[in-house]
Amino acid sequence: MNLILRDESALYYTCGYSCDNAILLRLGRDAWFFTDGRYAIEAKAQVRGAEVVIVPDIVASAARRLKKSGVKRCTYDPKEWDCHRFGRLDPRNKIRWVAKPDYSHKQRIIKSPEEIELLRKASRQGANAFEKIAKAFSREGFGRDERALHFLAERILRKEGKRALSFDPIVAVGPNAAKPHAQPTDRTLHKGDLLLLDAGVKYRRYCSDRTRTVRAVRSFDFGIEQRFKSRKIQRAYDTVLKAHDRAIAKARSGMKAREIDALARELIEKAGFGEYFVHSTGHGVGLDIHEMPYISTRSKTRIEDGMVFTVEPGIYIPGEFGIRIEDTVAMIRGRAEVL
Amino acid sequence: MNLILRDESALYYTCGYSCDNAILLRLGRDAWFFTDGRYAIEAKAQVRGAEVVIVPDIVASAARRLKKSGVKRCTYDPKEWDCHRFGRLDPRNKIRWVAKPDYSHKQRIIKSPEEIELLRKASRQGANAFEKIAKAFSREGFGRDERALHFLAERILRKEGKRALSFDPIVAVGPNAAKPHAQPTDRTLHKGDLLLLDAGVKYRRYCSDRTRTVRAVRSFDFGIEQRFKSRKIQRAYDTVLKAHDRAIAKARSGMKAREIDALARELIEKAGFGEYFVHSTGHGVGLDIHEMPYISTRSKTRIEDGMVFTVEPGIYIPGEFGIRIEDTVAMIRGRAEVL
Repeated sequence: MNLILRDESALYYTCGYSCDNAILLRLGRDAWFFTDGRYAIEAKAQVRGAEVVIVPDIVASAARRLKKSGVKRCTYDPKEWDCHRFGRLDPRNKIRWVAKPDYSHKQRIIKSPEEIELLRKASRQGANAFEKIAKAFSREGFGRDERALHFLAERILRKEGKRALSFDPIVAVGPNAAKPHAQPTDRTLHKGDLLLLDAGVKYRRYCSDRTRTVRAVRSFDFGIEQRFKSRKIQRAYDTVLKAHDRAIAKARSGMKAREIDALARELIEKAGFGEYFVHSTGHGVGLDIHEMPYISTRSKTRIEDGMVFTVEPGIYIPGEFGIRIEDTVAMIRGRAEVL
Repeated sequence: MNLILRDESALYYTCGYSCDNAILLRLGRDAWFFTDGRYAIEAKAQVRGAEVVIVPDIVASAARRLKKSGVKRCTYDPKEWDCHRFGRLDPRNKIRWVAKPDYSHKQRIIKSPEEIELLRKASRQGANAFEKIAKAFSREGFGRDERALHFLAERILRKEGKRALSFDPIVAVGPNAAKPHAQPTDRTLHKGDLLLLDAGVKYRRYCSDRTRTVRAVRSFDFGIEQRFKSRKIQRAYDTVLKAHDRAIAKARSGMKAREIDALARELIEKAGFGEYFVHSTGHGVGLDIHEMPYISTRSKTRIEDGMVFTVEPGIYIPGEFGIRIEDTVAMIRGRAEVL
């Protein structure tokens, strides 16, 4: 199959190296990795299974190679290409382009044992960072606003610049936690406040993802057992925790993704919070923070051993509070194992 | 003219608000700003000149609106759209799409006096951060590696999380400065080393951009007068500084952009370093860090009052050192004024 790839994770998965300006073109048995001079040294040392071609304009070079080869068909992922660059690849419309959305994500949906080890390592480093953040917040977090807390958390997650993040962490206090993608504001953390932290780090490019919601008292950790003063918050918290635990305990290889979503969702609905669980139960995690399988109400994906995804039910009551508890699991011997 | 926009800076420029999931559609006299529920409150308060439509799938909603309107022609920027989303806008190919690459960048090439004030403010904040970074590096930078220095610089630039960056800053020591887009490594800063810092901050979304190359001695600043021990480095430094000063002093409205590039390049070529000046002399700066006009050997853009761009000649000798000196200038009353 002739194939052209551009996405960084897709390239890294396919040939062991990527950078922010590269194209992999595979035509029959030949393959070329086009990049520019800034990446020449690394690309030549690390790219596997393709000839490295250093050029100023990678799209023009790939287009010339396509034209010269005379290929009639080529597969691409339409999510990887902007219309401008894609138009330059084949300006005279000589090729029958086969659009395969999510081509690389589909290839990567089952993780190898080696990949699961990397994801496990990332998760451990992420969990360690949560412990350090709890200590730092206990010591110097009270009286500071979300922006400062976010910055402090990021500093610890990034290990003073030595580590990459899976995504921009979410640090939300009290009612701000009701926004699933809260941006840090000038709201200050006081003792007794509800605090939500959603963060992940990368280990050798593989992502971790984890969320904890806690009552921030004098000296706290991000443990999963939490006591809130408000009965309503406590009831919501206990519901989310049960939904999280149930989905993990009962998930099995062979189920459809939507059945795993239902394991969590049914419990939240029964408790009367159904309308406040406004997102899906989880998403795959790998080289990208959002991958397949999607654990949503509509997903018919059959869950298999080797899939890695988050379980992250939540309850969000606008203007009041938000709760989410998230772990990343790997399907191993038919069951979900928390990484 | 019917128009559809997606890029964040394009949306912000056009209607005063943007977020990472929005589409602006203007059909005749009507305009709609499609976004999802996460941004409902901010969008309704801030969007000017368009009706805010909150929907889960913005592409599907824009497609329905296009279909309902029955328009025959619509302008778009093919750089803003991936092939997948663009294909969903008009699945039955009813519309004649007019591709205008860089549509919004072209609109934004002349800055208003108000925009120049915002850019000036950003530049001042950026320059202040350089001073603070010099102090921090003098105090605690020696013996630390580029990754740690990068993190420290970023912390100061971001003002502990209160400020956004124009781009990921470049901190390079000695031979690493020879890579124009150096990534931080584990190379350690010692007294007397050459140190390059390229960084910018945002003020109300407008970017600053600045580079200094210095000899890092016990207590140093990022001043433009520098003394290096090596005669070769000094000669290269003096050449870059002269090229930088000459381009700024002699730039005039009415020139072509390539003539401004030549003002710097000729001087570097005459000094025998021509082959080591591997990029163009500058780029426009505004809501995006890279905008029009591009100050390159090939650009025929006519420079006009109100344009804002960088002047950043450099000399990069692989394995030895790299030097770049960069300021951002605005064309005001025919001349280049450093912001």
